[in-house]
Amino acid sequence: MTIGVVTKPGLADAGDTLLALEEWLSRRRTSVVWSEAAAAQLPPSAGRWVSSLDDLPRTVDLVLVLGGDGTLLGMAGRIAAANADIPLLGVNFGSLGFLTEITRPELFTSLEAVISGSATHDLRMLLRARSLGTALSTHVALNDIVFSRPSGARLLELRVWVGDQFVTTIRADGLIIASPTGSTAYSLSAGGPIVHPAMDALILTPIAPHTLSNRPIVIPAERDVRVQMTAAATGDGMLVTFDGQTTLEVPDSTDIVVGRAPRPMRLIRASARSYFDVLREKLGWHQR
Amino acid sequence: MTIGVVTKPGLADAGDTLLALEEWLSRRRTSVVWSEAAAAQLPPSAGRWVSSLDDLPRTVDLVLVLGGDGTLLGMAGRIAAANADIPLLGVNFGSLGFLTEITRPELFTSLEAVISGSATHDLRMLLRARSLGTALSTHVALNDIVFSRPSGARLLELRVWVGDQFVTTIRADGLIIASPTGSTAYSLSAGGPIVHPAMDALILTPIAPHTLSNRPIVIPAERDVRVQMTAAATGDGMLVTFDGQTTLEVPDSTDIVVGRAPRPMRLIRASARSYFDVLREKLGWHQR
Amino acid sequence: MTIGVVTKPGLADAGDTLLALEEWLSRRRTSVVWSEAAAAQLPPSAGRWVSSLDDLPRTVDLVLVLGGDGTLLGMAGRIAAANADIPLLGVNFGSLGFLTEITRPELFTSLEAVISGSATHDLRMLLRARSLGTALSTHVALNDIVFSRPSGARLLELRVWVGDQFVTTIRADGLIIASPTGSTAYSLSAGGPIVHPAMDALILTPIAPHTLSNRPIVIPAERDVRVQMTAAATGDGMLVTFDGQTTLEVPDSTDIVVGRAPRPMRLIRASARSYFDVLREKLGWHQR
Amino acid sequence: MTIGVVTKPGLADAGDTLLALEEWLSRRRTSVVWSEAAAAQLPPSAGRWVSSLDDLPRTVDLVLVLGGDGTLLGMAGRIAAANADIPLLGVNFGSLGFLTEITRPELFTSLEAVISGSATHDLRMLLRARSLGTALSTHVALNDIVFSRPSGARLLELRVWVGDQFVTTIRADGLIIASPTGSTAYSLSAGGPIVHPAMDALILTPIAPHTLSNRPIVIPAERDVRVQMTAAATGDGMLVTFDGQTTLEVPDSTDIVVGRAPRPMRLIRASARSYFDVLREKLGWHQR
Repeated sequence: MTIGVVTKPGLADAGDTLLALEEWLSRRRTSVVWSEAAAAQLPPSAGRWVSSLDDLPRTVDLVLVLGGDGTLLGMAGRIAAANADIPLLGVNFGSLGFLTEITRPELFTSLEAVISGSATHDLRMLLRARSLGTALSTHVALNDIVFSRPSGARLLELRVWVGDQFVTTIRADGLIIASPTGSTAYSLSAGGPIVHPAMDALILTPIAPHTLSNRPIVIPAERDVRVQMTAAATGDGMLVTFDGQTTLEVPDSTDIVVGRAPRPMRLIRASARSYFDVLREKLGWHQR
Repeated sequence: MTIGVVTKPGLADAGDTLLALEEWLSRRRTSVVWSEAAAAQLPPSAGRWVSSLDDLPRTVDLVLVLGGDGTLLGMAGRIAAANADIPLLGVNFGSLGFLTEITRPELFTSLEAVISGSATHDLRMLLRARSLGTALSTHVALNDIVFSRPSGARLLELRVWVGDQFVTTIRADGLIIASPTGSTAYSLSAGGPIVHPAMDALILTPIAPHTLSNRPIVIPAERDVRVQMTAAATGDGMLVTFDGQTTLEVPDSTDIVVGRAPRPMRLIRASARSYFDVLREKLGWHQR
Repeated sequence: MTIGVVTKPGLADAGDTLLALEEWLSRRRTSVVWSEAAAAQLPPSAGRWVSSLDDLPRTVDLVLVLGGDGTLLGMAGRIAAANADIPLLGVNFGSLGFLTEITRPELFTSLEAVISGSATHDLRMLLRARSLGTALSTHVALNDIVFSRPSGARLLELRVWVGDQFVTTIRADGLIIASPTGSTAYSLSAGGPIVHPAMDALILTPIAPHTLSNRPIVIPAERDVRVQMTAAATGDGMLVTFDGQTTLEVPDSTDIVVGRAPRPMRLIRASARSYFDVLREKLGWHQR
Repeated sequence: MTIGVVTKPGLADAGDTLLALEEWLSRRRTSVVWSEAAAAQLPPSAGRWVSSLDDLPRTVDLVLVLGGDGTLLGMAGRIAAANADIPLLGVNFGSLGFLTEITRPELFTSLEAVISGSATHDLRMLLRARSLGTALSTHVALNDIVFSRPSGARLLELRVWVGDQFVTTIRADGLIIASPTGSTAYSLSAGGPIVHPAMDALILTPIAPHTLSNRPIVIPAERDVRVQMTAAATGDGMLVTFDGQTTLEVPDSTDIVVGRAPRPMRLIRASARSYFDVLREKLGWHQR
């Protein structure tokens, strides 16, 4: 078994943890591939295997992310881009995350569970956007794909279809198409519901819609969502953002189809926390 | 084929339509069972078959509801109580309904489609509530089951579980557990999302929750929801309301389990309107 | 100077504090009138002055509330009913309150500030409801006056005027008319805005309104709000609740006018906390 | 009396109305200054007075806007920039506007009321933003001043003060500071309350805030709001948009103070519609 270790960009105080991790994995005769940023925090040593983030998915059996939800989202995109089927284990170095729900003190007990085979995998739907002849086709998202306007152009006017049924024209700051995993991220801030990750659903959440009754909609994930900028709003094009990390510009006339990607992401669940345990903690709900 | 005909209580101007209906069905050699209220609007005639609303489901192959969503909800409950598997066709005598999406001028073309077998059926999940040794077990709902407090007692404090996982304690005016069908009814008013009726989901929508982050939650319908009044709030009991029509009082110590009923309701779709066509019309969304 | 001391009903562990308070006030030659519940927690002693809650406002210069926001709201209503102009000082025995923003350890430093005259007073608008020939006229509220339906009757249909201008007919679970002070209480749970207590405003917040665009409205407090149940909804009457504490039944045909009471309530501000300091703490906002 | 006439950019079918207007005003011996776009829709004629939009406020006693709310907002900004005190009359050429609540058929009866002196003026607060040594100081807004991030940078992190009291750090897509007039525009879409224009208030509405309890806040207009980007979010600067029309880029380190401008805008009320009549019509509320 080979484990890839990735750290959050700018994470400065992980040196001790990484050294302990190296020793711990060595004792268990488990190979490690370090990301460049992770290796830079370790004392110099010959024989360490180091990889770029993009190449990592091709060489490991599992990726351990030390950081936060953003770092895990970035790796999820790279694993999907490499068309690999590699599970992710997220350990949070700040506050508890929705995706990185292992805390620092739980790192080694969690790894123990993973190596011994007692940890379970959670399959999480990925989203993809398609468009004839554009670069969109190579991008996926674990949380959300967001349509918005370039700076200064406040209003987006989007015609929306679900399958072959016309939904409506949405005038808004933007439109979020979220997975259940992403329902507790940006979509929640924009007024969307919490959707349990076992649901096979897409969530359409408009951002600051003009029409007050344009409320979030939950649809079966087997139906694609098609969006198209209206002629009235044309000129400046539209932005499409994947997981808040990658933004592409799309010309006005482009139809974009968003749907479930063919292969899900595998998240390792190595803690005793249930989905609702994490929700309570993150959202400040009553604990008892 | 025998058709049951039910009218909205208090509906006064349906006489002409009912007479035309009687002639139309007679020409097609289709038997009719009239509800008592419907028969009362027809001129006296021997040989008409009249039934109480409760007995109707035992004698017909299809129920035609002339009225609004409320009348259809009432019949859906009676069909389920009779453990019958009878489709419902709703014709709206007021404004378009979410459930009664056939308009009055479309009555006969819709019936034609039903009789000729070209109309399709939409299966809609029913909700049921169970509780050891209580009358709850005999009630189902098509839209929602709502927990609330008796008059004057403003705050409800409910502990909630999904499956065997504890969710949180909700302090609110009430808690709505809605089906996707009911997501556009009371739950929407309380801030819930629109959930497509093809989804197999339950929606938990708190009404005016104290904790602002207690947002609506969408969960897979195969998981039951268990609710329990907290000891702190005990004394006055709790109300459980089915589809806004039937309200039962429940003592404090009762655990109530809400889930999907074993058998769905069948709604006849006899118009060319899609689900989103009805949404646009009812919610005042942009039509193009 | 005579101080009235009132404790939260059921508060069981205040005995030590009350004893210390008696000694502290005695040393400062300040007279005390104890509420019956407060006196019951003190060791028997001759010469203590004890009063019912209703009589207290007639005999003291200031009321010290040991409890929570609910206890303070109750005393505010009694002071207004007695047509007295007595300031209130709230000390919270649980978690920080919006109205009782003095913590237990700050009790004596706050009292010191009050006795030495260095504490400031915050004038807070009171609400009152009027109706020809009804008992409503004797009730005021510091937070909110709420219109709702009796148990089981889900929908309230209310016609609303501001001054002599018709606003709309609201179909909802209820309608909250809140003061700025009450904007962070029930109204906030129902989706209302936070309104700074220095504003001279009324907030109209519908509870779960049918029409999704029926959003909260903030109006100048010098305009009265008139509400009237529509004929369609008549039969069961309506409930009017003051500060969540007193509920009156009102027959269908009654017009009710809600406005600013002629005299405000005086809250003593004896802590260094600003209004926003309390908001941050209570609502879990970022502290820095 | 000299009336300036301004038309919506791109408005193509106003020729007949403008010609009728020219004759009508000529009969009443009222001088007219036409905007360049308005004049271009009239048949050639000697002796017409034509002006640029920027110069218009210096030469007229009243500006008649034929178009929509956006056109009126643009003229309001120019009148304020010219430090002029000129009333605005808005006639809507599309659907009813919040600011342009005169319909096309009501044009001449409204003008008659204005010329005869029977129309009333509505004073509407203007907002202004100040910042040491920047171009901001010359801009005002009638509806709102909005802080947002450049394209692609999703999150804005803003520290906010009201007067000299710290409020909180808001992490959001943006922050809207609206006047009561603007409360029914962008702020409403982002979840803000409706605030009656007679209120002297500022509304702070975060757009898609991370912290779910960061709700809209209404404060007295005599208190300034100060915002500052946090160090954590620096790098790309911030955008400040006035009435959705003018956008300025502001470097990271800038403190910006938003408050009430010294002079209000005067809107002419020449219809019998009350504020709530317009709300009902625009928001689709129950009319009776």
